[in-house]
Amino acid sequence: MTAQGKLKMYDLAAADAARRFSPYCWRVRLALAHKGLEVETIPWRFTEKEAIAPSGQGRVPVLVDGDKWVSDSWAIAEYLEDKYPDRPSLFGGAAGRALSRFYAGWADGVLNPSLVRFLVLDVWKQVDPKDKDYFRKTREERVGATLEAYVAERDKYLKGFRDSLLPLRLALKAQPFLGGDRPLQADYIVFGGFQWARRISDYELLAADDPVSAWRGRMLELFGGFAK
Amino acid sequence: MTAQGKLKMYDLAAADAARRFSPYCWRVRLALAHKGLEVETIPWRFTEKEAIAPSGQGRVPVLVDGDKWVSDSWAIAEYLEDKYPDRPSLFGGAAGRALSRFYAGWADGVLNPSLVRFLVLDVWKQVDPKDKDYFRKTREERVGATLEAYVAERDKYLKGFRDSLLPLRLALKAQPFLGGDRPLQADYIVFGGFQWARRISDYELLAADDPVSAWRGRMLELFGGFAK
Repeated sequence: MTAQGKLKMYDLAAADAARRFSPYCWRVRLALAHKGLEVETIPWRFTEKEAIAPSGQGRVPVLVDGDKWVSDSWAIAEYLEDKYPDRPSLFGGAAGRALSRFYAGWADGVLNPSLVRFLVLDVWKQVDPKDKDYFRKTREERVGATLEAYVAERDKYLKGFRDSLLPLRLALKAQPFLGGDRPLQADYIVFGGFQWARRISDYELLAADDPVSAWRGRMLELFGGFAK
Repeated sequence: MTAQGKLKMYDLAAADAARRFSPYCWRVRLALAHKGLEVETIPWRFTEKEAIAPSGQGRVPVLVDGDKWVSDSWAIAEYLEDKYPDRPSLFGGAAGRALSRFYAGWADGVLNPSLVRFLVLDVWKQVDPKDKDYFRKTREERVGATLEAYVAERDKYLKGFRDSLLPLRLALKAQPFLGGDRPLQADYIVFGGFQWARRISDYELLAADDPVSAWRGRMLELFGGFAK
């Protein structure tokens, strides 16, 4: 590591501190692994706003590099790319960086919101006791129903969810990763959603013969099975 | 141009031969303009399968470069990129090429199919008389209704359509083009759908204050207003 010491990252954790499940934190953890950078992850709960106050906001991931605090998974990926240009690139150049934005738009605007329907009750079950009231209140306001009622109908939404993955499926028919022969940040951005699901729930989102499932399997093998 | 003569392209045309409306042909026309390549476009109607038989299939765009016939808009873009590497790049490198696949997946799997709901009757009205029966029959089979009945409900689908553009909107909040400061093939892939709409129908798909509308305006200004 550099002279300024090890990177630190605040990483959303469940009651079991080893259970890390934020889709946005996973983007960063995989970006760090891609760059070959060591990081000390600090388990963080939803209600621990003060711990990350120096970042100027209240959500994780937050990366701490010496006296520099960086929040937002996209900003962190750009920070790592610019600070460690000699390490494997997350974007594959300027065009690749710009083209990766749409992946974040799709994951943030389509994939992750639609996963809430399947996962939100399982998240509530797993979060730290001190987070439970906060989580239930904010999420029930957002979805306009009790978590139990909202999730009870999830099977009805499974076909629609799988259909919504068609763009991913079409891209992955042509190549093993969204980034081509090797994964790039675009892969980590999308994979974060599936990893969120995997870490928090037993619900099977993908059909076994879905090319998206095969890609998820390849992602899980990366960096010595880092995300398994 | 090269010694082997001018490029030719079969380009879907309406009854009015000057009205070119295929979203896939527009991807190629803009790719050619991006590369600064002249092309002779040959107006082509749906039922003129024999004219493009040397391409081994029955759909346009088809590019003819000397004795080489290339079909499929993605394959044509790759052909142009590889054959004219010294001209402005369509992908911005190997990573950009791979990352552009998902744009085609999204346009082919989400954007263009959803546009059918709004446009299909207007297309039928504009196609060449000799195409009308073919077009109506194949499209009514596909949508499972008469074209008139299918399109009559289109206003109900407008909000959902606009919502479906969120990934595009999020990406375009951060930068003027999907490719960054300048457009790339990813922009042409997506823009093709909007240009299809614009060339065939008066229906207003976008709210005036939508960032996607501003991007469409920038796309129309490219290459001296080429797509206007």
